[in-house]
Formats: sequence, structure tokens, C-alpha cells
Amino acid sequence: MTVTGQSIIAGVPTSGTAGTFRAVDPSTDEPIGPEVKALTIDELRAATTAAAGAFPDYRATAPQDRARFLETVAEQIEAIGDELPETAAAESGLPTARVQGERTRTCGQLRVFAGVVRQGDHLGVRVDPAQPQREPLPRPDLRMRQVPIGPVAVFGASNFPLAFSTAGGDTASALAAGCPVVVKGHNAHPGTAELVGRAVARAAELSGMPAGVFSLVFGIGNEIGAALVTDPAIQGVGFTGSRGGGLALVAQAAKRPQPIPVYAEMSSVNPVVVLPGALEGDRSGLATGYVTSLTNGSGQFCTNPGLLFLPSGASGDRFLDAVGEAVRTCSGQTMLTPQIRAHFDERASFLASAPAVATVATGTVGQAANAPAPAVFATELDDFVAEEGLAEEVFGAAGLVVRYPDVESLATVLGGLEGQLTATIHGTDSDLDDARVIVPVLETRAGRILWGGWPTGVEVSEAMVHGGPYPATSDPRSTSVGTLAIERWQRPVCYQDLPAALLPDAVRDENPWQLVRRVDGTLQLP
Amino acid sequence: MTVTGQSIIAGVPTSGTAGTFRAVDPSTDEPIGPEVKALTIDELRAATTAAAGAFPDYRATAPQDRARFLETVAEQIEAIGDELPETAAAESGLPTARVQGERTRTCGQLRVFAGVVRQGDHLGVRVDPAQPQREPLPRPDLRMRQVPIGPVAVFGASNFPLAFSTAGGDTASALAAGCPVVVKGHNAHPGTAELVGRAVARAAELSGMPAGVFSLVFGIGNEIGAALVTDPAIQGVGFTGSRGGGLALVAQAAKRPQPIPVYAEMSSVNPVVVLPGALEGDRSGLATGYVTSLTNGSGQFCTNPGLLFLPSGASGDRFLDAVGEAVRTCSGQTMLTPQIRAHFDERASFLASAPAVATVATGTVGQAANAPAPAVFATELDDFVAEEGLAEEVFGAAGLVVRYPDVESLATVLGGLEGQLTATIHGTDSDLDDARVIVPVLETRAGRILWGGWPTGVEVSEAMVHGGPYPATSDPRSTSVGTLAIERWQRPVCYQDLPAALLPDAVRDENPWQLVRRVDGTLQLP
Repeated sequence: MTVTGQSIIAGVPTSGTAGTFRAVDPSTDEPIGPEVKALTIDELRAATTAAAGAFPDYRATAPQDRARFLETVAEQIEAIGDELPETAAAESGLPTARVQGERTRTCGQLRVFAGVVRQGDHLGVRVDPAQPQREPLPRPDLRMRQVPIGPVAVFGASNFPLAFSTAGGDTASALAAGCPVVVKGHNAHPGTAELVGRAVARAAELSGMPAGVFSLVFGIGNEIGAALVTDPAIQGVGFTGSRGGGLALVAQAAKRPQPIPVYAEMSSVNPVVVLPGALEGDRSGLATGYVTSLTNGSGQFCTNPGLLFLPSGASGDRFLDAVGEAVRTCSGQTMLTPQIRAHFDERASFLASAPAVATVATGTVGQAANAPAPAVFATELDDFVAEEGLAEEVFGAAGLVVRYPDVESLATVLGGLEGQLTATIHGTDSDLDDARVIVPVLETRAGRILWGGWPTGVEVSEAMVHGGPYPATSDPRSTSVGTLAIERWQRPVCYQDLPAALLPDAVRDENPWQLVRRVDGTLQLP
Repeated sequence: MTVTGQSIIAGVPTSGTAGTFRAVDPSTDEPIGPEVKALTIDELRAATTAAAGAFPDYRATAPQDRARFLETVAEQIEAIGDELPETAAAESGLPTARVQGERTRTCGQLRVFAGVVRQGDHLGVRVDPAQPQREPLPRPDLRMRQVPIGPVAVFGASNFPLAFSTAGGDTASALAAGCPVVVKGHNAHPGTAELVGRAVARAAELSGMPAGVFSLVFGIGNEIGAALVTDPAIQGVGFTGSRGGGLALVAQAAKRPQPIPVYAEMSSVNPVVVLPGALEGDRSGLATGYVTSLTNGSGQFCTNPGLLFLPSGASGDRFLDAVGEAVRTCSGQTMLTPQIRAHFDERASFLASAPAVATVATGTVGQAANAPAPAVFATELDDFVAEEGLAEEVFGAAGLVVRYPDVESLATVLGGLEGQLTATIHGTDSDLDDARVIVPVLETRAGRILWGGWPTGVEVSEAMVHGGPYPATSDPRSTSVGTLAIERWQRPVCYQDLPAALLPDAVRDENPWQLVRRVDGTLQLP
């Protein structure tokens, strides 16, 4: 395939007329790939109109057909071959092996959602049979299922050009729910987006889906995103990115004549709590694990452990020494974009010059462009609370270690943290009493609580929560990774006394889709 | 009991110092009951602070204990005796029998949620066992449960002084979820609120719950509500009332440093579609059913059938004649407040004088105060679309009949309606083809679709949806009636590799609460 710089509107490659831009290889700062022809807002409307037009047919597809479509998307992405990881690596600065792994995850994720669609538990079917003899009033026949909310806008993420972008988690879960998707391609990886977008469009064609079920649109500036979110056809938004970007979309969605839900996964410092017992064991392994998680992918994970709480005292000091040693061996890796690198530099300088913050160690600047030196800083709990800005995310490979005098003070500070995607505890059996104090506090602050590991690495599974209280996300009642993510794109509908001839298959007495159903208050397996 | 005009803050009767107001008997326009001592915003803080303080203990209560608390609330409400329906009837103008029925429903609803808590399916437990041998990376042990979001503010509704107020559906579902509740009592029925509030506080004491689990607060003006919604301790809001009131709360919640979810059930005209076949049967029974549903409770139901679409032609005309006959026999019933009556008069006058609207019939003004004459108006489909304001809710016993020339035009207009709580179809077997066109359209517009009945009367059951697209509600992903309502007050948390000693009971291997759980992707019954 050759990347053309075109949007894909309901299957049709489309050259926009609003100007052009080009991708940049962040490891060289050189432009790469063709000129991307940005759409005007009028041109964008063709995509949302097609999505609205496709919705009635797409939402009515049988589970088997919709699942096959998702699987075909995965097959078509795999069929692109090496061009995909090569393009993604060039546009993102991420190592090819990492991008290959991300492709595996992306395709696996699509197949997981195909399985979800086939199983159908997300339809949440409930049947309350009529009770015509009930006194004082008969009970009608009531049946509930979840229905898709309508066309969804997805914003590609810079840090996961495959797994959180064109055919990533938001797109896969929305398509699985029965919602057409319009993806706003991320301008940092337009070639990657186009390759994947064409694969999705081809899969729709091969699977007999309405063409409007998927579009990929390119634009310049924030106007095109705002136009997408405020388009009357769009009924929900998925976003992974900065807090500023996410909150702008939330505000736009709220100001619509008909407000719509926005699922923005925004920012998190992912606190790690080291309890005293953890320092009695393999301190150096713990330090290496921390620095590896912190610097992995140039620290550009939503779940990067930006904040580590460490007991004051000699054991903590020795751990910090080991951390310093590990950091000094680290070389900078190319960041996703020059802008992201500039922002990292700014935040790292802020920490380096903050009065109550000491620099534990820095690594070396990488040889390629935009590869700043990793760094670890340290401060005391009181200063962390008193000084403005220390709890804010540094997007990149820089961490702040906060020394705490006792678990009670720590628990108070943890309870005052902003909402987080994850919170991690390192401890041993001797720390369980302290942990019992801390876990309930962390439950109110984070979507996922880990013991003894590191938060980077997010499993796509049934029990995963990649979400959390504001501002980690704009809507803590959900997750953007894992099978529960499909529920974001649904709403319940109840059918009262409908004749069998009008009932949707999901709620018919014969249970043709073999669904788990709650009948008269009791779950029944098919 | 004697009504005192006091708020109840964490079990303590509290006289506010922000001035006083009194309830009004709308059937006489005379003040009744004692002076209610409104709280200042500073005084209100005692309630939210107590709720936040009670949250850690209350969320940790075992299902059996929390369920018993809800049942004790029901018992304590029943123990009030006749004073409760008498007070509620006097303050609302609703007939005593209706209020007695509402008490039955309110207590039944509390017991339904006790059953939900005992069963525990709302915890949505998922367990993905570790796969230490998996290649290329091992899978950690992952467990998910839903946790309560935190203290919830509930705004009492004028039209259901019991079932949607102090211990109504929002309070019952939030308490069931593990959230402390602060109720802003409705100023139209402060005596009713106080009686019920004392019952809840007494139940908390009898059940050994932390006193801060429940408070009832009275205030004057909108400031107290705004202070409640913007209080940092409050994590969610339940509201039933006007669109203006609901949207104000939504806006306040969105502007918080940490925005929170608002579940506002606001307004709906509940379209009824009469298909041609329905006019071939018992036209007069159909007309009587319509008028009964329209005028029931003075038309003050969220699900009142304000809009009826009728086929043009002779059969439709004869149905309208029967409607007119039924309306003319109706006498006005006292409305909830003089303000609501004034608003009804205004909207009814608007319809009566709208150029393209004809008055089909009016009933008679009731003998008591604030009992305006019921009325039915009629217009044509084209005029309904062209003329501003005809699709807006009239809160009260007034309906608009819209004559449609054919089902295709009707479907287009239905698709353009605002979001609704309900949509109803009347038809016979001969109408099934038309209904197949209309049902999918209505699914996108309403939370509940009825066949052959009337939307007033909302079952509290598993499959009920009392919700719907904006502006019927501020959040169409939920329901405010029925067991699914508990999910509004929850968010998921994932536990990764936690030692058994730290795992919450809900997700432990031994499954001590005997929960339905999704283990490795498969639902397992206990």
C-alpha cells in the first residue's frame, strides 16, 4: 500500500481542501510521508452524515455478522504487513518491536470484542414476565436490553498509534456495541492512521457492512475536532490524550443543544507506595523495576509511575541510591513529537529548579533527536503538599520520589491526591496492617490497585479497569481497556407488552442468541 | 410525631438560621404546618461533612447489614402511621388514597433494593486468574468489583412526595450502593420530608449505621442546592423535576474543580402513536384510556401522555369525538403548588391560542383551589413541525393530538422529537408492518416502549427503564426506577495481584458473599 494523505469517508479515499500538513520523524525532526490533505468542516460532514445513515442498519446486525466484521478488521490490519510497524515506528519514534507488539495487541483486542459480541452478555437482557393476576394491579410484561447510543467520534492517541488510535480500544468497543465510528486521525501519525483506516474500510466492505460504519478524517487545528464533537449526528466521544485536550472536548460536548457523553482518558501520575517491609528485601531489584517502568517507551505511558512514596530513613536512602545508579545508566529515547519533548523539558526543568526538590540522578541524552535524559527527583512529604505543581503529571521519563515519615501522614496525603488510573503498593507480609489502611484510601483515588508490580502494561481482559476518578478520566464509571469498555456506548431500553412479532431477538422468549438473561430477578445461563 | 420544621443532620434535629418558610395546602392556598427553619450554607456543611465522614464505614458494611438498614427504613416509614399520608396529601393536594399507594411503593422499593444488596449482582465481580506461564508475558491476577462513588445529593420531587423524595428511588438506590445521602427536602412538602427523614435517621440508629449516612436539609432559594452540588464531599446527584432545575444542577456540577455525575430526570411529552388498526376496535375504550392516563393525578406524572399521534380521516375524527366526550366529564384536580398551576395555565393558554391548534374539549375547573380544567387540543402534523413550542411539555392534564397523513411522514417527525421517557404504540395485527418501521425510530428516542397501554404507572422491577435520551434525562445510560438504578452510584475498581489478605470479600476466591461472578470470561452462578 502507499500512503496517500487522504481521509477515508465511508470507504471513499477523499482529499480534503483545507490545506496540508506532513508527519515528522521525531528521531530526525524531518518531515516524512506525503502531504496530508486536511478536510474542511463541510467536508467532514460527509463522514458524520454517512455514520448517521449507517446506524440503523449497523445496529441491527446479528452478533455473528458484527463479530466477523471485527475479526476481519484484525485480519486486514495483519494483511498490511511490515509497512504498518515501519510507518508507525517512523512516525512515533517508538522502536519497531514495540510497535509490532502493539499491532498484536490491537488485533487481539478486536478479536476479544468479537468474542464479547458473540457472547452478548453486554446486552444486559432482563425479562420480567407479566403477572396478570397480581393485586392491586397486574404487572405488564417488561423486557430490557442495552442498545447502541449512535455514531461515536474517536480521537487517536499519540502514544499508542495502533492500540489507542484508528482501530484501537475505543473504536473496537464502539463498533462492537453497534455504533458507527468516525476517527479523527492523530496528526503525529497520519500514515499509520491511513493504513489502518483503509484496513477497516476494506473489512467493512468484505463483511457487507454499510460503508458509513467507519470513516477516518484528517484536519488541521482544533476546529475539526470541535466540529466533530458538536456534530448533531455524533452521540458519544472517546479520547486519550492530554488533560487540556480532553477537557476542551468535554466542554464542547456539554454545550451542545443535546449534550453527549465524553470518555476522555487524560492524565495520571500513578502513585507507587513503598512500604517499609519492601525495603528489607531486594532493594536493588525494586529500584531497577521502578526505573524500567519509569523509562519504558520514554515514559510515555498513561500508567507511568510518576510519583513514588518512600519511607524516610536509611533503608529509603539506600533504595534511592540504587535508583540513582539505575537512572545514570539510562539513555534518552526519542519522544513522540518535538512538542511533547519540549513540554517534558519544561516540566523536568521545573522539578529540577523547585526549591524543595533534589535531583537524585539523570541519565544521558539520547543520540537521536528529541531524546531527553531520564531523571528522578526527590522531595519530602511536607514539601510535596506545600509546593504547587509537584503532583502534576510529567509526560515522559521523569519521576518524583516523596519521602514520608509515617503511614498515617502518607494516608492523609494519598487521600488528597487527584484521581488516578492506577495506584501501586510494594510491601511484604509485615506491611499488611499498613496496607489495610492504605488500600481503602487508594480505592477512592484510582481505577486499578496493584500489589508488588508496576502499573505500565495494561491487560486487555474482563477484569481490567483503565479508568479512575477525575481528572484521570472525565467519567470514572467506565474503563477504556478491557471488555467492560463496550458498556460506554450503550443505553438501556425497556419494552412493555410488545407483541412477540415486534420484539428484538435479544429479548424474545426463544432466546435465539442464547444469551445470559435475568429472568424474574434470577440470572439464567443459556 | 409532630412536625417541627427542622433539618436532620446526621441524626440530629437542627434548626437553621437562614430564615423560615411554610408549606401551603394547594387546595386552599393556606399555609400549613410549622415554620421551617432554613439552613445557611455554613450549616449545610455539617451534613456533607458528616456524609464524607460516614462514607468509609458505610461503604464497608456487609450486604446483610446494609440490606437490613434499608428494610428498617421501610419499617420506620410504615411506623409513622396515618400522619404520613395525611401530611403528604395536605401538602401536595394529592388524594390520600394515591399517597397511601405511594407509601406502599416507597417501602416496597426499599425492600427491592435490600434484595438487590443481598444478591450482590450489581457488584459486577469479574476474576481473571493469573496465567504465570503465558507467553510472551505472564498474565497477572486481576479482579474487578464496583465500588460506591461517595456521598450523594438527592433533590426531592414535587410530584412524588414519597416515592421520588426523601426516601424515594434515588435515596434507596444510593444507600443500597453504599453511598451516604444528603436529601434537599422539597419546599412544597417539608412536613412529609421531615417525617420520612426522621424515619431514615431512626433506622440508621437502630441498624448501627454511622449517623452521617443520611441527612435531610431545608433551605430557601436555589443557593442551598447549588452549595450542595458544588460541595467537594458530594460525588453524585439525583434529581427529578423541571428541565430548568435539572439543567442548572448539571451546569453547577460540570463547573466544579472535580465534575460529578448528575442524574436529572427532567421532562418528557411521552408520545403515543395510534396506528390505523387501533381505531377499528374499541375506539371509545381507547379514548377513555387516553383521557384517564392524561388526567390521572392532575396530569402531573413524568410519564403523562402529552402528545398523541392520530391517523387523519374519519376514524380518527370519531376517536377525537370520543376523547372530547370523555374530557368534558372531567373535573380539575388540585395541582401540587400554585406555581405549577400558574405554569399549567400559561402553557394551556398558549396551546388554546396557537394559530394552528384547535381545542377539542375542556373539562371543568375543580372546586378546590389550583384545580384547572383538563383540556385536549388538536393540530396537524405539518403544523406541529412548523409551529414553535408545540412539542414542549405541558406539566398537567392537557394533551395535544397530532393528526398524521401517513406512517412515513409520522416516522420522520418521531425521529426528530426530543428524547423521551416513554413512547407508546396502539395497534393491532394489521399494524405490525407500520410498527416495524416505527419501533426502531422510537428506540432511539425513548427509554421505554409500550404497546397497547398507557405510560403512566411505572413498575419497580428488574427490566424497568425510567430514563431516556436528553432532555428526558441528563444521562440516558441509566434509569431512576428499577433495580438497574443502583448502577448510577458505582464505579469499577480492579485489583491486580493483591494478596488474599487485602482483597475485599466480594472478589475473594472463597466467594463468601455467594456472588454471581464472571470468572475467566464465563459467568458462574454461586
